[in-house]
Amino acid sequence: MKIGFLGPRGTFSFEVASNFATDEDELIEYRTIKDCILGIEKKEVDRAVVPIENSLQGGVTETIDSLIESDGIYIENEYILKINQNLMANNNYHLEEIKEVYSHPQAIAQCRNYIEQKLYNANIIQVFSTALAAKEVKNRDYCACIANISCLKEYGLKLLDADIQDNDFNQTKFWILSNNENSVGNKMSIIFSTKNKPGALYEILGLFNKNEINLSKIESRPAKTVLGEYIFLVDLDVNKKIDETIDVLKKECSYIKLLGRY
Amino acid sequence: MKIGFLGPRGTFSFEVASNFATDEDELIEYRTIKDCILGIEKKEVDRAVVPIENSLQGGVTETIDSLIESDGIYIENEYILKINQNLMANNNYHLEEIKEVYSHPQAIAQCRNYIEQKLYNANIIQVFSTALAAKEVKNRDYCACIANISCLKEYGLKLLDADIQDNDFNQTKFWILSNNENSVGNKMSIIFSTKNKPGALYEILGLFNKNEINLSKIESRPAKTVLGEYIFLVDLDVNKKIDETIDVLKKECSYIKLLGRY
Repeated sequence: MKIGFLGPRGTFSFEVASNFATDEDELIEYRTIKDCILGIEKKEVDRAVVPIENSLQGGVTETIDSLIESDGIYIENEYILKINQNLMANNNYHLEEIKEVYSHPQAIAQCRNYIEQKLYNANIIQVFSTALAAKEVKNRDYCACIANISCLKEYGLKLLDADIQDNDFNQTKFWILSNNENSVGNKMSIIFSTKNKPGALYEILGLFNKNEINLSKIESRPAKTVLGEYIFLVDLDVNKKIDETIDVLKKECSYIKLLGRY
Repeated sequence: MKIGFLGPRGTFSFEVASNFATDEDELIEYRTIKDCILGIEKKEVDRAVVPIENSLQGGVTETIDSLIESDGIYIENEYILKINQNLMANNNYHLEEIKEVYSHPQAIAQCRNYIEQKLYNANIIQVFSTALAAKEVKNRDYCACIANISCLKEYGLKLLDADIQDNDFNQTKFWILSNNENSVGNKMSIIFSTKNKPGALYEILGLFNKNEINLSKIESRPAKTVLGEYIFLVDLDVNKKIDETIDVLKKECSYIKLLGRY
C-alpha cells in the first residue's frame, strides 16, 4: 500500500504514517496538504495522512478547504497524537543570538507566546512543514527551527529548548483518508451548507437532536462567495437513525458531502 | 482620540483607521493584534482597529483568541474593506527570479494558489503585517512582498503583479474596539461555551430561535483544554427580546462574555 503524508520525513504526519504502516507499505511525501489529498484523487497513493484539528489552534483550515474542493475522498480512520514542539539549530546558540526561526504556520501559532517572550528579535520564516524547517536550518548559522524531536537525529541538529508549546495539552487529530467509502464505524463526518434563510442551521441541528445523533464538533468555513455565507463541517456519533437522517439532510441542505463512517 | 492599529503604516488596518480618524486623532501602531487589543485594556488607546473575518480565509483566530483572553473590551462598530493583494519589490524582477516572498500569514493564505503556481521556488517569510513585509523587501534584492497597494508609494517599491488574491470576492471585516459597552445598535456579538452535555449547543440555538433572534454567524474555537471542547463566537441581529435572552443564556452557558451592541 502507498501512504501519502505531509513531508519531508520527520513531520508529525510522518510520525503518524510510520505508526500504522507495515514493512510492505511505501511512504510517499507531499509538499502541501492539498497535494497530499489530491494524491488520492489521482490514485498516486492509497491512503493520505493529514492533520484535521489541533487542541490549541482549532481546525486545520487547509485540510478542511481541500476536502471541500475535492471529490471522492473519505475518512478511513482518525489518530490522535500528543504534540511536543522543540527549538533546534545547527549549534548550541543562546536564544538572543537567533536571527530567524523556521517552522510550519501551525507550529508557529502553537508557540506564539514563547516566540513573543523569548525570540522577539527573530524573523519568523514560514515553510511548508516542520521537518522542512529542520532541513533548512541545518546549513544556516544563527537560525533555529521549531519541530518534532525526531528531527534532531534525522537532520543532526542540537536541542536549544524542549517542549516550547504554549499549552501542555497539545494534541493533534489526524485523519487517514482514502477513496473507499466505509459503511461501518461509530463516527461520521459531513460537510454541508444550509439554505440562505434565518434559522436554517438551527433546523439542521434540530434534525440531529430529534434523531438523538450527537454532534461532537461543528466548524464553520467561509463559502468564499460573500461575507456571511458559510460551509459547516460536523462530526457525528452514528446511531441506527443515521441513514434516514442523511436522506432528509440531502433535501434540506443546499450542498452536502459525506466523508464516510470510521 | 488615540486609535491603535496593526502597524506599521500601510496595513489594511491602517487604511481602515485612517478612513474614520479625524485630524485631531492620533494613530498608534502595534506589532501584533494581541498587543493592539491589550492597548485598550491598558488604556494606552481609546479605540483599536482589528480584522475579525475574511471572506476567503474565515475568522481571524488571533483576534478571536485575544478577545476570549481579554476583559472589558467591546465592539464600537464594524467596517468592511475590499482587499486587493499586490506583489511588489525593490526592482522590476521576473517572477522566477524571486527567492523570498514576505507577507502576513492571512495575506499569504489569500494568495495560496498564486504562490503555488507562480512563486513555487520562493521561500515564504511570515512577518507581523503586510506593511512590515513591504518595509523588509525595500532593502532586499530578489525579494518580493504581498501587500496593500498603498505600500508602493509609502516604501518606494515597484509593482510586479496586481490583484493576485485567489478569489476576487475578497473582503475583510474589521471591528473597531473600545472599553465602552454600547447599549444601542442592531447587532451584538457574544462569546460563550456550553455545558458539556449532548445537544447543549442545539438548546442555546433554540433559545435564539424561540425569541426570533437571527444568528448571522457562528464560529467555534478550541477551549484549549481537551480536544472536543469549544468556545463559540456568535453575531446576533438584536430585537426587543435580546435582554431576556441574554439573562437566560447567562444561566445556561458555562461561560459567557458580551462584546456589546453596535
